[in-house]
Amino acid sequence: MPDDALPPGGPSMEHRSNQSQAVTDNNPVLVEVVRGEMVESRHRGTFAVADVEGRIVLSAGDFERDVYPRSAIKPLQALALVESGAADAFNVDDKELAVACASHQGDAAHTEVVQAWLARIGRSGDDLECGAHLPYGEASAHALIRAGKSAETLHNNCSGKHAGFLTLAKQLGVAPKGYIKFEHPVQQSILGILEMLSGLDLRSAPRAIDGCGIPQYAMPLENLALAMARLADPVDQPERRQAACARVRDAMTAEPLMVAGTGRFCTQIIEATAGRALVKTGAEGVFCAALPELGLGLALKIDDGATRASQVATGAVLRRLGVLDDETAQGLSHLLTPELHNRAGTLVGEIRPAEPAFG
Amino acid sequence: MPDDALPPGGPSMEHRSNQSQAVTDNNPVLVEVVRGEMVESRHRGTFAVADVEGRIVLSAGDFERDVYPRSAIKPLQALALVESGAADAFNVDDKELAVACASHQGDAAHTEVVQAWLARIGRSGDDLECGAHLPYGEASAHALIRAGKSAETLHNNCSGKHAGFLTLAKQLGVAPKGYIKFEHPVQQSILGILEMLSGLDLRSAPRAIDGCGIPQYAMPLENLALAMARLADPVDQPERRQAACARVRDAMTAEPLMVAGTGRFCTQIIEATAGRALVKTGAEGVFCAALPELGLGLALKIDDGATRASQVATGAVLRRLGVLDDETAQGLSHLLTPELHNRAGTLVGEIRPAEPAFG
Repeated sequence: MPDDALPPGGPSMEHRSNQSQAVTDNNPVLVEVVRGEMVESRHRGTFAVADVEGRIVLSAGDFERDVYPRSAIKPLQALALVESGAADAFNVDDKELAVACASHQGDAAHTEVVQAWLARIGRSGDDLECGAHLPYGEASAHALIRAGKSAETLHNNCSGKHAGFLTLAKQLGVAPKGYIKFEHPVQQSILGILEMLSGLDLRSAPRAIDGCGIPQYAMPLENLALAMARLADPVDQPERRQAACARVRDAMTAEPLMVAGTGRFCTQIIEATAGRALVKTGAEGVFCAALPELGLGLALKIDDGATRASQVATGAVLRRLGVLDDETAQGLSHLLTPELHNRAGTLVGEIRPAEPAFG
Repeated sequence: MPDDALPPGGPSMEHRSNQSQAVTDNNPVLVEVVRGEMVESRHRGTFAVADVEGRIVLSAGDFERDVYPRSAIKPLQALALVESGAADAFNVDDKELAVACASHQGDAAHTEVVQAWLARIGRSGDDLECGAHLPYGEASAHALIRAGKSAETLHNNCSGKHAGFLTLAKQLGVAPKGYIKFEHPVQQSILGILEMLSGLDLRSAPRAIDGCGIPQYAMPLENLALAMARLADPVDQPERRQAACARVRDAMTAEPLMVAGTGRFCTQIIEATAGRALVKTGAEGVFCAALPELGLGLALKIDDGATRASQVATGAVLRRLGVLDDETAQGLSHLLTPELHNRAGTLVGEIRPAEPAFG
């Protein structure tokens, strides 16, 4: 994309790679794992909360460091589905749009929605290029095993996102095969949106392949936070994108169960905040959130990639920002400071935010 | 135990607690997780390789920091079973002794040995106080689920260790019930052995309850390394303990499959080195090893508790020490620098040692 198409404001417009730099600086401890009388393990990390002009209003650690956003940007990838007109053309409803933004746990509630959606556009699970894995949901995984069945692509936590890609391919009038490749029009159209939202030229960014096969571009954490702020409040974006952002936010707010599943962190936070915190987990300790009421975006990365820490740290940031008030937080204590029980059920410790980092 | 009973040499004889100290220092990055063109995640940690006089011959990071040894000291806990005379009195064979040192994966090979052992001493799985969890081994777990059965205490990765505790209780002539409690004679006799091997008075050490319900005492990592060096070469220990150490080493060497299971890190390393590296994993990123030929002990802790990192870092230390030669290392590359594949089977990255830390 030409430079003049980049939106104004925001952090660096140039990509900064950390590839060849030794990481000598240290991010602070964000999360502590307590067992008995001692902190047993510690998770370091960094986070940035940005407004729509890219100002960092709260942070910890080196938020200029590159991260792969992983699944935490599914809501941004889903914008292409809406902006392209595909969502309207193929009658994509809130449940479907929410599952396109999801790392779902493969319950029937999820797979049935994806399957019906695929059937409506003349596709099936066989067209999904995400690979298969057992449902994250234990009950669903065990049911599958008990039935002597194997995991299918529909159970993949990314199957909704991939259904969105296939729908977009249809709308673009291109062959669906290979829709996960860097050069495929589906991924190129998403790349353009990510560049505009993050304020980055991602063509020279470090690249990788995601767990579900699609392209990943690294970006400084602060730019990821800016992109999420723009999802929350796309005031400086084209009208078509503003409408798409609203539709994605509304779908996630209306269908939190589709975004993850019963008992999962993202689902419970979205539900408890009635969409004031649209949180989304990513692999390797990444978390993002759009905070529509505040017009802010959050991006967070645990250095070591642990989800148990990214969740607790995200909860602590939401507490600090007041998105989770005291009463709501009390009801979510099992997510904010999870208890650790041993195999016999005895309480042996807890996971807690390292308070100084969230000061 | 009186001070004059503590063995000579070794690091600090006094327990140093890090409870009330802020952790401001930083351990080095030991392991990097690479995805595509960039290091995506980093694991910090510390390790110490000690000789039997407590001299640290190789290290990284703050090896004076307290750690809970977790399951990595099962071979030390098994010494009580032998020293007490229980192993002889109840005809405990190599397989049983090895499974007492194990975090096994709950295959029939493991549960059958534990079940037969318990039956021989007039006990059963009902007497095990470790709680139940699905076998770590995927095939065994799925077989159980397919059969519509629940996990039993026998499947608990610690069931062999607990069978050892029940055997010890019988030998001591005490009631088995509550054998996991801090004050129970079984745990007290193990505490005495840990104190002599580590050179520490553990009565004032930070305490916790382990995943399987038994006492955990924190100790500086360097003392844990010393204890493992003494398992490797118990030259300064009482004769009875020297014999017990030899028997435990021999059992682990003869029956590596019982120490973990098919395909697991500990089993493969012990097998490949024919017992020159008696490695044992522990929860929360702990690893220990006794290196009999070198008369050295290794203790290692990943700050954030990740097993994927403790394994790779342990492999790197063994490489550095020459315990794994080039040819052996080549055959174990899947453990030393594991490839990362996505759900569709594409190679997307690897986990590798951060070389400078192992200089």
